[in-house]
Amino acid sequence: MIIQLEKNIDKDLSTKIKSTLNELKFSVNPVSTQFEDYLICIGKNEFDIRSIGHLKGVKDVHRVSDNYKLVSNKWKTKNTVIDLGNDVRIGDGSVSVMAGPCSVENEAQMESITEHLVKNNIKIMRGGVFKPRSSPYAFRGLGIDGLKMMHEFCKPHGIKIITEVMQASQIEEMSPYTDIFQVGARNSQNFNLLDALGESDKAVLIKRGVSGTIEELLYSAEYVFSKGNERLMLCERGIRTFETIYRNTFDINAIQVLKDKSHLPVIADPSHGVGIRNYVPKLALAAVMAGADGIIYEVHEKPEEALSDAQQTLNFMESDLLIQNINKLATFL
Amino acid sequence: MIIQLEKNIDKDLSTKIKSTLNELKFSVNPVSTQFEDYLICIGKNEFDIRSIGHLKGVKDVHRVSDNYKLVSNKWKTKNTVIDLGNDVRIGDGSVSVMAGPCSVENEAQMESITEHLVKNNIKIMRGGVFKPRSSPYAFRGLGIDGLKMMHEFCKPHGIKIITEVMQASQIEEMSPYTDIFQVGARNSQNFNLLDALGESDKAVLIKRGVSGTIEELLYSAEYVFSKGNERLMLCERGIRTFETIYRNTFDINAIQVLKDKSHLPVIADPSHGVGIRNYVPKLALAAVMAGADGIIYEVHEKPEEALSDAQQTLNFMESDLLIQNINKLATFL
Amino acid sequence: MIIQLEKNIDKDLSTKIKSTLNELKFSVNPVSTQFEDYLICIGKNEFDIRSIGHLKGVKDVHRVSDNYKLVSNKWKTKNTVIDLGNDVRIGDGSVSVMAGPCSVENEAQMESITEHLVKNNIKIMRGGVFKPRSSPYAFRGLGIDGLKMMHEFCKPHGIKIITEVMQASQIEEMSPYTDIFQVGARNSQNFNLLDALGESDKAVLIKRGVSGTIEELLYSAEYVFSKGNERLMLCERGIRTFETIYRNTFDINAIQVLKDKSHLPVIADPSHGVGIRNYVPKLALAAVMAGADGIIYEVHEKPEEALSDAQQTLNFMESDLLIQNINKLATFL
Amino acid sequence: MIIQLEKNIDKDLSTKIKSTLNELKFSVNPVSTQFEDYLICIGKNEFDIRSIGHLKGVKDVHRVSDNYKLVSNKWKTKNTVIDLGNDVRIGDGSVSVMAGPCSVENEAQMESITEHLVKNNIKIMRGGVFKPRSSPYAFRGLGIDGLKMMHEFCKPHGIKIITEVMQASQIEEMSPYTDIFQVGARNSQNFNLLDALGESDKAVLIKRGVSGTIEELLYSAEYVFSKGNERLMLCERGIRTFETIYRNTFDINAIQVLKDKSHLPVIADPSHGVGIRNYVPKLALAAVMAGADGIIYEVHEKPEEALSDAQQTLNFMESDLLIQNINKLATFL
Repeated sequence: MIIQLEKNIDKDLSTKIKSTLNELKFSVNPVSTQFEDYLICIGKNEFDIRSIGHLKGVKDVHRVSDNYKLVSNKWKTKNTVIDLGNDVRIGDGSVSVMAGPCSVENEAQMESITEHLVKNNIKIMRGGVFKPRSSPYAFRGLGIDGLKMMHEFCKPHGIKIITEVMQASQIEEMSPYTDIFQVGARNSQNFNLLDALGESDKAVLIKRGVSGTIEELLYSAEYVFSKGNERLMLCERGIRTFETIYRNTFDINAIQVLKDKSHLPVIADPSHGVGIRNYVPKLALAAVMAGADGIIYEVHEKPEEALSDAQQTLNFMESDLLIQNINKLATFL
Repeated sequence: MIIQLEKNIDKDLSTKIKSTLNELKFSVNPVSTQFEDYLICIGKNEFDIRSIGHLKGVKDVHRVSDNYKLVSNKWKTKNTVIDLGNDVRIGDGSVSVMAGPCSVENEAQMESITEHLVKNNIKIMRGGVFKPRSSPYAFRGLGIDGLKMMHEFCKPHGIKIITEVMQASQIEEMSPYTDIFQVGARNSQNFNLLDALGESDKAVLIKRGVSGTIEELLYSAEYVFSKGNERLMLCERGIRTFETIYRNTFDINAIQVLKDKSHLPVIADPSHGVGIRNYVPKLALAAVMAGADGIIYEVHEKPEEALSDAQQTLNFMESDLLIQNINKLATFL
Repeated sequence: MIIQLEKNIDKDLSTKIKSTLNELKFSVNPVSTQFEDYLICIGKNEFDIRSIGHLKGVKDVHRVSDNYKLVSNKWKTKNTVIDLGNDVRIGDGSVSVMAGPCSVENEAQMESITEHLVKNNIKIMRGGVFKPRSSPYAFRGLGIDGLKMMHEFCKPHGIKIITEVMQASQIEEMSPYTDIFQVGARNSQNFNLLDALGESDKAVLIKRGVSGTIEELLYSAEYVFSKGNERLMLCERGIRTFETIYRNTFDINAIQVLKDKSHLPVIADPSHGVGIRNYVPKLALAAVMAGADGIIYEVHEKPEEALSDAQQTLNFMESDLLIQNINKLATFL
Repeated sequence: MIIQLEKNIDKDLSTKIKSTLNELKFSVNPVSTQFEDYLICIGKNEFDIRSIGHLKGVKDVHRVSDNYKLVSNKWKTKNTVIDLGNDVRIGDGSVSVMAGPCSVENEAQMESITEHLVKNNIKIMRGGVFKPRSSPYAFRGLGIDGLKMMHEFCKPHGIKIITEVMQASQIEEMSPYTDIFQVGARNSQNFNLLDALGESDKAVLIKRGVSGTIEELLYSAEYVFSKGNERLMLCERGIRTFETIYRNTFDINAIQVLKDKSHLPVIADPSHGVGIRNYVPKLALAAVMAGADGIIYEVHEKPEEALSDAQQTLNFMESDLLIQNINKLATFL
């Protein structure tokens, strides 16, 4: 059960409501986000919902049968729209595009990619500076300096930045240069990181784990929301199966199901979803057709020279064409 | 290596070519289909391809590095088009639609579904009469009488029939009433069945196994082709993964990859691909966007009363709308 | 619900019992095996079980909550023992060993392997003559002549034969030379084959499908039992997962769970279960420790020259040592 | 390539060796652990290994073809033994037992479990105080106070402690009370955590990810080793597959393969490996038979009242019997 409290509720009043709920055998988790105050009540007791609804300070009461609560669309039927400022919104019915290199590499790369984004009217740049790599000897990213460089190129054009954060201690230094914190597939159930992002006001995109279930992804989002951050989106990026021809198996079913179970925007990552460059554009369009609120993909001036993910990165011509097709498809939807 | 022989090649000539190849340390598999005569040569010997190409009786010689040979697009760059007669073709660039109930049930059902197909200009009816069921106590289909009934309804309208065959001994009795033999997911590697279908002249649709790899599916097709039947298509119908919210995980990556590796048409089955009715239409459209040559889906006048697969079957209104959208999307492609 | 009928029950009496059950809204499936007559009743009706139990001709009545019925241990608490004659029994508490080559190849091979079995007191020889192979161009076995040859070598020593059957039409010609029909992993849900084996009196070993669930395997066994054959055993042989280092992932959990849910013997196939020769012996011992009633493994005088499965086949010395350890472990259990 | 340097090598000498390697086109990663100094050289250059081996300051040179280096047994053929003091060693050929509750709950629980360990001569207690839970509303452990309490009970008896660490910032406060830091399955690729544990001198047990490959697990271990900590062990705890009857599918193949590829001890976790109490003891014995260096399992005085993992936790009697059988089996091995 989710109880929405009146804005700026008096503390005594809130304590009184909690006591009433405890008496009804509910365990009560208070949640205060940048937008609202809630009480999340866990328990199986049957009772007259009006007895709560009539309490002073209670704005609304919602029964939510799902195990996750705040991210469920059982109580919030209006889809979440994330406003990044400068007219950049995610989840408002348009197809949001996030494009850029796997890793931020150097100024020349940032210059060419910025130009490419501006030309195609892409409002959000992706680019990794803290890179989770299977091998400790692989390139692990430029770190915070890479992010600052990225920011210098994006800022003049009002381009927003999405980049991966790997641990709680990085959040503070990254925040001034970041619009969306990306939680990578390997950290999808790094609960300390999720807790910490719940205390940030920045938007958060959570990638589904390499073999994460739909429910686990929604629970991970619940972690962030329940710590205070409603500016959340989910990302399908392919799962691990027995098939070895492609890097991952893009689970297109997940898009509709996530949209159906949650009010959060759902982004598709076709680059990781198949892992082979030639198949990325059609996969992106298929994901849009399935209902994705946005697409995040890898693009590089010279993919074959990219320091990471070369095999799945589009070149500029391929990216130009993809954007044209996404725009064309938007008129079909 | 695939050697195409001259049509109606003299037997002595063909024997001579085989001896030459044996001398070159190749094992030679002669294949005669409804269209062509081939020699499939397996071996790793390096040699001057012209020494074969110049032999009398040899029409063409193709090196094929894939393990499967005849179904590879390494030698046949033109996509296979399957002509079912009455202007019904699969793989010609249009989106083929195959629709109908999971199981043929009775005359009333056949009448209503026929009407629905005619109304929507759908040229191929699907309908099972031999049903593979996990439990021996479940409804196992009406058998050959059901197929005859189906045929009576379809014939007057020139509607073609696709239906599942479960074992070699059924082929003969089914043939007069069948246009496309469907090999189900559970029989995807039933090699005796595949061998027998190779000796038929009817078109064959092979579903990917529940956890079949791309390569295994192509090998299964190679079985049919190498026994003499080129009228073949492949079908992605969802694979088994760890995710339990949906019946299967539709592997949308497979569509592009199969099209890329083989010259055979690729059909998508969104009904089994997700297994939940509400998600079938968008999944169908996404599969078309990914490049599928056709869609096979389940539709029933009253899905909730269907004897099998009720949960994933569209009703007529949903099917009407899906067809409209497929047609609309066809103009986009 | 399973109803056991009196032996040689009068037909009128049996018809009467069926009518009574139909009146109680059960669908009734009569089953007659080599040992007993049963009525399998499917339905959810609540009723007084004594009203059936007291009927003339009824020997016993068992409620079975599992979806599979006859193979469940909910009604048959005593484990099934399969008697192959000559004091060879499976499921009697000892560890049954089935060993031999992947494929029957020639007389010399049969001679050496027979000698190896005799020396180690192994009572059951495995050996394939109809081989399911992914590629149509691979060696597909010697066929019925291979089986006859195998039989000639085994018979003088009282060695029993287990060999794979691939389709119903092979059963008759194979029967005189076969003691246990093996259903391969790819045919685990070939329901026509299972039906046909239900009409045989020979013992049947059903391998779990490459990605078959525990429940599907039990259902496949239910097919055979419900068609009249109680002489059945199950086989865990590894499943398909994301891990690619080994051919299959041996699911050791399955052994205990199958033993817990069913009264049928459970055999472990460590050769396919890991697919790498060096790991087969310890895996075999681990499976015995987990409760397997028997082990089936591949052994060949010169594994590196075997026509199939060379990589996972033990040589004679390795096999000698494995047998010693199995015997030693048997005293521990 | 791994280069072992002389102990306390002069800095100039070490710099000179690096230059030589750089000239040979190797990227050089210096590693200093609690025991040795290494240079890990990544590159594909062919050269005369003696030209390095003869350099002053070089103790030994090993070519390692695996992608992971320091954890490979290609260079270190002697298995790693981890000495925890007080005669408690892991990897020395005996079967190490780690037992205790899923979560530390209270003093009474700690008292009874300590007594149980002492009685059975179990030298290592497991017990979680920072609990990764899918839901943010579930019990998340007692935190550092729980660890201190655990330590108070263990210390007088010389019982060592293994407990899960979830993020780098917890390491310092946990260290005084911890003998083995456990990295949980969900954090198996939390590279920042692994980096940080590499700087600790405490032993580390890394659990395989829920769908982690063997290679990924070895890479994760490489992270810790390459940051300076050689006191490492690996843990198989079941993987995620399509089978839903059990919580996880214990991958018994992994034990032999990990032992074969690495010199690190391998521990089996049968509690998570199957997730159902009745199956834990036999699975533990099977894992020992497969070659596991140790077993970690969950035990509680009253499993049904445990705050977490109640379903898979043994009671004291079951645990007594398991220990007896492990000891008995040890004489067989």
